[in-house]
Amino acid sequence: MNQPIRISVDAMGGDFGPEVTIAGCALILERYPSLRFLLHGDSGAIDGELAKFEALKAVSSVHHTDVVVRMDDKPSQALRHGRRRSSMWLALESVRHGDADFAVSAGNTGALMAMAKFCLKTMANVERPAIAAIWPTVRGESVVLDLGATIGAEAGQLVDFAVMGAAMAKAVLGLENPTVGLLNIGVEEVKGLDEIKTAASLIRDSGLDIDFRGFVEGDDIGKGTVDVVVTEGFSGNIALKTAEGTAKQISSYLRAAMSRSLLTRIGGFLARGAFDELKARLDPRRSNGGVFLGLNGIVMKSHGGTDAEGFAASMDIGLDVVRYSLLEHIARDLEKFRNTRPVAAAVTQE
Amino acid sequence: MNQPIRISVDAMGGDFGPEVTIAGCALILERYPSLRFLLHGDSGAIDGELAKFEALKAVSSVHHTDVVVRMDDKPSQALRHGRRRSSMWLALESVRHGDADFAVSAGNTGALMAMAKFCLKTMANVERPAIAAIWPTVRGESVVLDLGATIGAEAGQLVDFAVMGAAMAKAVLGLENPTVGLLNIGVEEVKGLDEIKTAASLIRDSGLDIDFRGFVEGDDIGKGTVDVVVTEGFSGNIALKTAEGTAKQISSYLRAAMSRSLLTRIGGFLARGAFDELKARLDPRRSNGGVFLGLNGIVMKSHGGTDAEGFAASMDIGLDVVRYSLLEHIARDLEKFRNTRPVAAAVTQE
Repeated sequence: MNQPIRISVDAMGGDFGPEVTIAGCALILERYPSLRFLLHGDSGAIDGELAKFEALKAVSSVHHTDVVVRMDDKPSQALRHGRRRSSMWLALESVRHGDADFAVSAGNTGALMAMAKFCLKTMANVERPAIAAIWPTVRGESVVLDLGATIGAEAGQLVDFAVMGAAMAKAVLGLENPTVGLLNIGVEEVKGLDEIKTAASLIRDSGLDIDFRGFVEGDDIGKGTVDVVVTEGFSGNIALKTAEGTAKQISSYLRAAMSRSLLTRIGGFLARGAFDELKARLDPRRSNGGVFLGLNGIVMKSHGGTDAEGFAASMDIGLDVVRYSLLEHIARDLEKFRNTRPVAAAVTQE
Repeated sequence: MNQPIRISVDAMGGDFGPEVTIAGCALILERYPSLRFLLHGDSGAIDGELAKFEALKAVSSVHHTDVVVRMDDKPSQALRHGRRRSSMWLALESVRHGDADFAVSAGNTGALMAMAKFCLKTMANVERPAIAAIWPTVRGESVVLDLGATIGAEAGQLVDFAVMGAAMAKAVLGLENPTVGLLNIGVEEVKGLDEIKTAASLIRDSGLDIDFRGFVEGDDIGKGTVDVVVTEGFSGNIALKTAEGTAKQISSYLRAAMSRSLLTRIGGFLARGAFDELKARLDPRRSNGGVFLGLNGIVMKSHGGTDAEGFAASMDIGLDVVRYSLLEHIARDLEKFRNTRPVAAAVTQE
């Protein structure tokens, strides 16, 4: 793209507000000096932080609002208080009006998704949006979706997610032909999971250019068995949080074990390079950035507790998504998919 | 209990059959010399292994059958070929006839659950059984259920699981008043999860002696936020497998990082005591043993790939369950719960 990419920032979102978000913008600008920023929020607080970053200040416009969506607002509260006037809403609106290429917020996920659906609306041919993220694996990185936007997706929605996830793997992981799997369980004879089985047939029959590998189980996510893991939002969110919990648990075991004796402490000191490497690989900032897919506009969700580095990392993913023209790719594939399932399409058009 | 506990063993189950199962029985007998064993399977193979363990041979009866449920049999195949004559079925039947206090198998989970339901039937007041397991946490150990027996449980079934899980935490973890949480997600405003919300109200209003702590998320499992985590089998299985995958993934990162340079290798050597400790804490054999709850009889499921130590560990859990009279406790609590929900009870009695 020759046009500079414009990022619309909810400067007030997250646990630390402008202190982190503005510093994050300064970081990403160092990497990509042609960027432009629209900063939404309290202009006093934003200007105070901007004063530290001359280069950022020169390529930013500040859009003042007093209204902030709180981290503990329920989506309905956020919509009531914050629609059309909060920094979160205004960040989204800049995307809707075509003034920015994507929006980024470290604000609360439920509120952001509710506002994003309201402000940007779901794409044609998409029933419900999804939250996708980059998941570090033994093999490298995979895309996992949905992580909590939809609960109990139907077969057609799972196919939408497969299409969106594959496009994201191409955009962000740079894969030409990503492999895709549907998350399932292998314990009991499959029952009550008709939507997953149906989704598998739909993908196979779709004629879409998807390298579909069938069902995968929970342990396949960390193994990196497929590049894209597709599931509905409840089990996706459980998987994500359980993996986070397990990683913390093992780190805590390891810390306790290493401080057990003088010998283990000396060993730990000598091997500290290895522990730094482990820490870096498990660093949530590296993969910080859920992407809201299926909306008429790109929205990046950064962790609420992130620091400037993590906030910059989520913008970095957003840049990949914009450069790849992710939404156009998804729209084209979903159109193609819809044309291969006349019955479902007819139902949608009713 | 003054009566010796009698264990009914599917000697042919698991990836290694009698080689592992018989050695496992010998191990647990060393710990509890008053045990008795009913060994089901190919008598030639069993006798060959028994010859190595004089003490075990003296307290075992061998019950011959040629029929074995294979590890890759679907539940329906297993029922067709193996009902009334496979080593798996006969192990369960000994429990039904009161000849043994619990059954243990390392055979395939789906087949074992299907046969167990058919042979032992679900308890009065229980609609569907659950698979529970001991999950190592930062705080110690928790009980998690269901891990894959039921998919998409309704509110009343989740309450059943809470009752069964609390009883198991008392029996196996030795807790007087275990805390209980319902697994949920916190991302989107709760919707489509009416059964979980309803289950929470039912537990609160039940008058049961349950220390209910409301909703927990995936990362709370590893933290050990509650002693008993209740969920339906699909997300439970996803959580279990995802945690296993994450643990393997981190071990693999750690191994790679430690072998990176001479210094890290020396450090790793000095700290090897710490790594052994970490390995021991993550050892799946320690918590090896899903328990099938909600049936008229206790069935222990050991991992298919387990060794003798792991097979013994699952019997050890079975012994705790029997000593505590787990089924009587569950039956009493479920009876009490049913009496506090006249509407649900009426529906059940129709």
